[in-house]
Amino acid sequence: MLSQGFRKPLVAVSLTALLTGCQATPNAELRGTGDLGVVVERATGSLAVVDTSEHRLLARVEGLGDLSHASVKFSRDARYAFVFGRDGGLSRVDLLTGTITHRVMQSGNSIGGAISQDGSLVAVANYEPGGVRLFDSETLEPVANIPATYRDEAGQEQRSKVVGLVDAPGNRFVYSLFEADAIHVVNMSGKTPEVTRFTDIGEAPYDALIGPNGRHYIAGLFGEDGLVLLDLWHLEDGVQRILPDYGRGEARLPVYKMPHLEGWAMAGGEAWLPAVGRHEVLVADTDNWSLTGRISVHGQPIFVMRRPDERQVWVNFAHPNNDVVQVIDTERREVVATLSPGEAVMHMEFTPRGEQVWISARDSDRVVIYDTRTLEEVARLPSESPSGIFFTDRAHRIGL
Amino acid sequence: MLSQGFRKPLVAVSLTALLTGCQATPNAELRGTGDLGVVVERATGSLAVVDTSEHRLLARVEGLGDLSHASVKFSRDARYAFVFGRDGGLSRVDLLTGTITHRVMQSGNSIGGAISQDGSLVAVANYEPGGVRLFDSETLEPVANIPATYRDEAGQEQRSKVVGLVDAPGNRFVYSLFEADAIHVVNMSGKTPEVTRFTDIGEAPYDALIGPNGRHYIAGLFGEDGLVLLDLWHLEDGVQRILPDYGRGEARLPVYKMPHLEGWAMAGGEAWLPAVGRHEVLVADTDNWSLTGRISVHGQPIFVMRRPDERQVWVNFAHPNNDVVQVIDTERREVVATLSPGEAVMHMEFTPRGEQVWISARDSDRVVIYDTRTLEEVARLPSESPSGIFFTDRAHRIGL
Repeated sequence: MLSQGFRKPLVAVSLTALLTGCQATPNAELRGTGDLGVVVERATGSLAVVDTSEHRLLARVEGLGDLSHASVKFSRDARYAFVFGRDGGLSRVDLLTGTITHRVMQSGNSIGGAISQDGSLVAVANYEPGGVRLFDSETLEPVANIPATYRDEAGQEQRSKVVGLVDAPGNRFVYSLFEADAIHVVNMSGKTPEVTRFTDIGEAPYDALIGPNGRHYIAGLFGEDGLVLLDLWHLEDGVQRILPDYGRGEARLPVYKMPHLEGWAMAGGEAWLPAVGRHEVLVADTDNWSLTGRISVHGQPIFVMRRPDERQVWVNFAHPNNDVVQVIDTERREVVATLSPGEAVMHMEFTPRGEQVWISARDSDRVVIYDTRTLEEVARLPSESPSGIFFTDRAHRIGL
Repeated sequence: MLSQGFRKPLVAVSLTALLTGCQATPNAELRGTGDLGVVVERATGSLAVVDTSEHRLLARVEGLGDLSHASVKFSRDARYAFVFGRDGGLSRVDLLTGTITHRVMQSGNSIGGAISQDGSLVAVANYEPGGVRLFDSETLEPVANIPATYRDEAGQEQRSKVVGLVDAPGNRFVYSLFEADAIHVVNMSGKTPEVTRFTDIGEAPYDALIGPNGRHYIAGLFGEDGLVLLDLWHLEDGVQRILPDYGRGEARLPVYKMPHLEGWAMAGGEAWLPAVGRHEVLVADTDNWSLTGRISVHGQPIFVMRRPDERQVWVNFAHPNNDVVQVIDTERREVVATLSPGEAVMHMEFTPRGEQVWISARDSDRVVIYDTRTLEEVARLPSESPSGIFFTDRAHRIGL
């Protein structure tokens, strides 16, 4: 079943127009925002605004700059998407009007961002110049600039790239410093940023995740095997090492793409994670971080995403095996289906209660939607080089 | 800080008005719906539509009938609230326009409802006549009527009151039959309802809950101690008994109000639950359902709600101790604060990421909002006899 373009006439109205008269702005509609989402269209630097109830494209927002590796967060009212471009551009997009309300070039090179627990602040992780910048989420006015400084072996002050930035309860942000081998926690609940620094955590943290209740921050290391865990309920305990064998291992396997840590699935006391360089998904007990399972899969896994009811995890893969998605039954711990949505599968996003999943197939220029119970295709939408897919229910979840 | 009424001019517009001209409807505004919620105002049969970002009342919707013990669910786009009145009234309220779009009197006496995983169906649990009725969520047109029939000891067909109705993954609904000592699972993923029946489950199930991933359905028994667990991943295993001592016990304590099961907090492998008739909150391990803790509290607990980050649970109490709320630190397992929001505290609702909590104090005619980190009052809103408070992020959560 094909579903594309606009199925209904769009009602045109903007807030400003209403206050000043009766003029219409394209692509605005009085509607709920709980079933909206966006698809990042990398090649064209655009964002497709989509409706997950009717499987339709509502608007295409252009002029967002370099969207390679772009990510998106949502305002707490689920009306605005904050788009973090690779070129340092930070844009605030109104999903209802399909327009950019604010846009700032806030650095030379950035790698994602986060929204504070109370929704008031947007934080951006920057490579160049290395640090975190904070903005008012309504105006994108700058609020704070926190350079990621450290002293190198010669005692010289340097700046580090920032990676793995997430929000945490208590209006905090947590992030890692690639060159500084450090994790910083910024508390924004007072008038000025209060930074707590953890140093010598391990060589070259390259990405991180935070668990669904916002307690555990886990960073991956590029320079060595193993991972680093910081318990945000007990900063006084410092960082600890977990899963010491996690990484490329002694064999130094060819790794086509380092898996994202945000692609881990935390489900029912277990973490499902992509092995680095191996055709395996790993299962670890999150109480003691022992490995409890290895599941053979089609390629080097990139994202391992749990279906919201935790009965399945869905996996995509690195080049050259990136034209399939596999479905693992979490109870039987085995692959139960292999699907072929198209070429170069980049991302997967479940609808909030998990009845469907949207999958981007970049080189086939489409997004394919599956019923997660029957595993049948429900619809597909044309999209130019789609990559990340993000739905507005993320506005309500810690760390997303 | 007091915050009441309208702080900003409301933009007035309705979809119909826009299509036909430029006429305005009161209380409509182009806005996101992710930070909306409703407060049930029992005495006046009205619903207050609220904005959790600005702590303000957006609209008051009247004409909803008998709202004692009323509950509310949300459409998957987070625009509409479905209000289940005690008198059998089912109403669909548009949060953006503050109007009732549809209303049906669907039974003589009902006790709550649920929305299907895909958002297409609304189910209502009825006492009189006993059964479940299903409606199209866009039109409230009837879709199915499932009488809760059973045979009594004399072999006569009877109808049972239905309680503890919840939605479950796979477009299923699960509910309990009070007089029939039964649990039914209705699968709505095909063309017609498919009912699986579990009988002789225990005496008089009076309420139920479903865990956050939608796997475990737990019913409380009025006629005996202990609880009943149904694993929805393994219906073939039937029901099992858990927490055999949970209930009033041999002492048959005076119970001022049977605690709601939906008031349990499931957090990190543990369930926090109100003891029946005792001034205690109980902690159970959800792997083996052994009791692992008892915490002395101010009165007979009614709701035990987890803060979304699971670091705290908040507890309210039955008459005559219902003028306070206590906060328990889940790690230290002790009461860390006692708050006095007003007389007759009925319900508590956390903002989606947990930075604040809204508490209804019925006999003080107000809703009080606290910062959950500082435990300080942030705002209060006047409201006539407020009871249940429900925020739209529930639209995106299984079983809510």
